[in-house]
Amino acid sequence: MRVYGRNVFREILYSNFPVRMVYFSENGDKELVMLIEQAKSRKLPYTISPKKILTRLCNFDKHQGVVVDIGEFPYKDESSIIETENGKGFFVILDQLQDPHNFGAIIRSAVGAGANAIVIPKNNSVKVTPTVVKVSVGTIFRIPIVEVVNISRFIEKIKKVGFWVYAADMQGVAYYRANLKRPVAIVFGSEGEGIRRGVKQKCDGVVSIPMKNSIDSLNVSVSAGIILFEVARQNENIDS
Amino acid sequence: MRVYGRNVFREILYSNFPVRMVYFSENGDKELVMLIEQAKSRKLPYTISPKKILTRLCNFDKHQGVVVDIGEFPYKDESSIIETENGKGFFVILDQLQDPHNFGAIIRSAVGAGANAIVIPKNNSVKVTPTVVKVSVGTIFRIPIVEVVNISRFIEKIKKVGFWVYAADMQGVAYYRANLKRPVAIVFGSEGEGIRRGVKQKCDGVVSIPMKNSIDSLNVSVSAGIILFEVARQNENIDS
Repeated sequence: MRVYGRNVFREILYSNFPVRMVYFSENGDKELVMLIEQAKSRKLPYTISPKKILTRLCNFDKHQGVVVDIGEFPYKDESSIIETENGKGFFVILDQLQDPHNFGAIIRSAVGAGANAIVIPKNNSVKVTPTVVKVSVGTIFRIPIVEVVNISRFIEKIKKVGFWVYAADMQGVAYYRANLKRPVAIVFGSEGEGIRRGVKQKCDGVVSIPMKNSIDSLNVSVSAGIILFEVARQNENIDS
Repeated sequence: MRVYGRNVFREILYSNFPVRMVYFSENGDKELVMLIEQAKSRKLPYTISPKKILTRLCNFDKHQGVVVDIGEFPYKDESSIIETENGKGFFVILDQLQDPHNFGAIIRSAVGAGANAIVIPKNNSVKVTPTVVKVSVGTIFRIPIVEVVNISRFIEKIKKVGFWVYAADMQGVAYYRANLKRPVAIVFGSEGEGIRRGVKQKCDGVVSIPMKNSIDSLNVSVSAGIILFEVARQNENIDS
């Protein structure tokens, strides 16, 4: 997969994310020259090419002079996160989310709120794409993205190791009245359909955002931001 | 301006928003037939046309069989909102926001959080477009959109009638530690630049979202959602 943009590349440097090749454009400005210097000092494989080559590589002309081939995206395996959690975990579970912009924005919020992993199902879910990486402003490189075959079974497993799991949906308790102390996981559903019934039944409770004017829902990335930062607030003394 | 989509049309009906003409597509499904019935019973001017005419009218083929000409968007004047506020107002001020998707999402959140008006500057700001209306899921018809010439002067005026005005920016007090009791206004800045310095100086205080992992910002529509629903929470006994 080829991702692009300067902030995305900075995040790749920051998190030491493995890269296959970095493509810089010719005749770059001062900032780009500095980024090339950093690639050099990190001994990353890189090449300098005409702008239009970069545009062809990522099918997009707003690449800001940097395209990075990161190979296949390294999804994590559920065992890796469950076993390494120290009893204070904070997971975000996305049940069949569809929109890459929502996925990218939720990743950014999840990292900012201190979540330890984002969990998606293997099937019928948005995947990590260059757009997701871009919208996440590269923060995706700071958090494991975990693919699981069966979300319900994953919820059962983490409940056994102490997680409290909430579905974010309508007609639950107000999110700020729920006990969101870690270890905790919050499940968000797809844009059209919400959380699947079978998944919701596995949860310990439902949290909702009380709304005025008989509005019944918000954009899912906004709902996620509101609830994930409430988790952050209730756990403000935990480093992550 | 021509807006489109079934939820948007339902919101127009719900809020009795004046329309010039409603265009329905031919051979619609049951749901569309019911919407035509409602247009008829409300005595709205409407016409039934081939799908491709609707597509041409709104330059977009996902109109769901309904395009509505609402004429020029009726921005409100600041005097109308300041004078009608009963001392418990809740305003959202957007200082040179640029992106229509962010604008639409913020409108939806503002209505859900019970805000009474959204204020934008006349110049250098995103305006109401069909995309904004669509992303707001039509909730824009439930809240006045106020255009003001000078945001700083508007802030001075509302402070005089008792509003407490906060800038949402970095390095302020944690948003949940601020007193956000109404009457209150929250100012959000543009996607790239944040709030202009002169505008920020007029505010009574700065509120921030504390973040982990040295993330320094979120998508502005997510930040707005988080802070506006904290206002809602601190004022949960006020109807609006």
